[in-house]
Amino acid sequence: MNNKLLIVGTMAYDDIETPFGREKKILGGAATYIGLSASQFALDCALISVIGEDFEERHLNLLKSKKIDISGVKIVKGGQTFFWRGKYKKDLNTRSTMETRLNVLENFNPIIPENLRSPDILMLGNLSPDVQIKAIEQIKNKPKLIILDTMNFWMDNFRTQLDEVIAKVDVISVNDEEARQLTGEYSLVKAARLILELGPRYVIIKKGEHGALLFHEDQVFSAPALPIDEVFDPTGAGDSFAGGFAGYLTQNLDFSFKNMKSAVIYGSAMASFTVEKFGTESLVKYSSLSMFNRLKAFKELTNFEIEF
Amino acid sequence: MNNKLLIVGTMAYDDIETPFGREKKILGGAATYIGLSASQFALDCALISVIGEDFEERHLNLLKSKKIDISGVKIVKGGQTFFWRGKYKKDLNTRSTMETRLNVLENFNPIIPENLRSPDILMLGNLSPDVQIKAIEQIKNKPKLIILDTMNFWMDNFRTQLDEVIAKVDVISVNDEEARQLTGEYSLVKAARLILELGPRYVIIKKGEHGALLFHEDQVFSAPALPIDEVFDPTGAGDSFAGGFAGYLTQNLDFSFKNMKSAVIYGSAMASFTVEKFGTESLVKYSSLSMFNRLKAFKELTNFEIEF
Repeated sequence: MNNKLLIVGTMAYDDIETPFGREKKILGGAATYIGLSASQFALDCALISVIGEDFEERHLNLLKSKKIDISGVKIVKGGQTFFWRGKYKKDLNTRSTMETRLNVLENFNPIIPENLRSPDILMLGNLSPDVQIKAIEQIKNKPKLIILDTMNFWMDNFRTQLDEVIAKVDVISVNDEEARQLTGEYSLVKAARLILELGPRYVIIKKGEHGALLFHEDQVFSAPALPIDEVFDPTGAGDSFAGGFAGYLTQNLDFSFKNMKSAVIYGSAMASFTVEKFGTESLVKYSSLSMFNRLKAFKELTNFEIEF
Repeated sequence: MNNKLLIVGTMAYDDIETPFGREKKILGGAATYIGLSASQFALDCALISVIGEDFEERHLNLLKSKKIDISGVKIVKGGQTFFWRGKYKKDLNTRSTMETRLNVLENFNPIIPENLRSPDILMLGNLSPDVQIKAIEQIKNKPKLIILDTMNFWMDNFRTQLDEVIAKVDVISVNDEEARQLTGEYSLVKAARLILELGPRYVIIKKGEHGALLFHEDQVFSAPALPIDEVFDPTGAGDSFAGGFAGYLTQNLDFSFKNMKSAVIYGSAMASFTVEKFGTESLVKYSSLSMFNRLKAFKELTNFEIEF
């Protein structure tokens, strides 16, 4: 029997413009990326989300074809799916949100089906802290690990609720700017230390093209991003990272620092796939052979010898 | 008998302001940092530079105490030493040059003493490409390795001369913005590939708090920067890196990619010392025990296991 990963997050349609072109309506959303990424591992994976009637059958079928349980995805009659439009600058590191239509997300009340209430790992994708708390409260037995991804919007406007969620999770994943904003500390080492005091045992700080840092007690691990010829579309990189990280951990349920480091590398590998194409295209076409080659590339990229 | 490293570069007095305070006149300059950093290794190290009569005896004695040969440092009668004043923003990643007084540097004509003209490794610190070429031309036998550090100022104003130098060196070290400027490519992978076509066999791209990348043929190595609690003063970090890199290589003269990777780690370790204090303070107080601990920290920071 496979271990169980439950993912709570958004499903969306995105309009994305990068220097390489524009796609006006492509599949997006945190839960989508996390699910597609996590589904590459040996596990039972289910999504809790909300979509409108406009959500296309072929996209639901895509998720099903990856053996993702979508029985917890609520389809709102007459509703429209959450929509996000973003535009990337030439450097692909800075993006502007051009338009956000919450649509069915506005009144999202997550209902976790009975048979999905005992996951081994609960992954909370970027969402309103209120929704994240509601999800946590429906879980029957304390999961072996709760992973939280969040972002600056919630820090600005819902800090009290966000702190409540942060106190309940084992792993928090934020980017460098968010870690600084959350703590008021510019030094990422100091910021991570303060976040660890808020409750989580592990802090992941994502640095985009510069990789990610994992903090636990007084240990630090630095994972590089794979240097790739051309970042095509960074959308979903963080969520693909979270999916690879959570998926790998669900497969083996080993939460030692050593294994968490491996999980960060798997997450980084999934993120490196995602940014090479528009939207979810790479994740959909993923092959385990390419994963093998990519993990080897990470090994070669970071391996060095020092004689003491 | 020790192997020989010859360093050509500036010696200076700096006025540095960081969020932590200001030092109005401290020892600086590329050759100074490179020399102090390289002198930690088992080698014979000599500087080619120029200073004014204002250069303090105690600073010359400091260099001599580190067994650095300063017979090639010209003291200009009645001249003033090169002076630079810089101010760092709160994030310590961005700095403004507030004042530059070239002084004796303006007419610097490097004369390499006869006994220093056969180094194993020649390290060209950031300087006018014209001066760098004059130095190269005085070397008797082709050195086993020539390493070049340069910066955006020379790319903007002396591109032809700079290209001439670049074509003659084995290793070039620039930061990420400079790599982009030199090539017009935003992707560092593509930029490095173009720089390799200009002549050097190795390209180092420094990324400040995000570490450094080493490129050679189709291989890449990513070295992290050591996450430290507080960067105190980044001045000289790049030169300390170059000194550690060149010093380690001079010690063993092994230019395999494997050993070049180790050299990058030694360089990163030296840079991590420098940024922890104002100016050259850490380099001066350096102990080999702290190097041992720092190399161990780099190992722990980057080490991960993936089972295939």
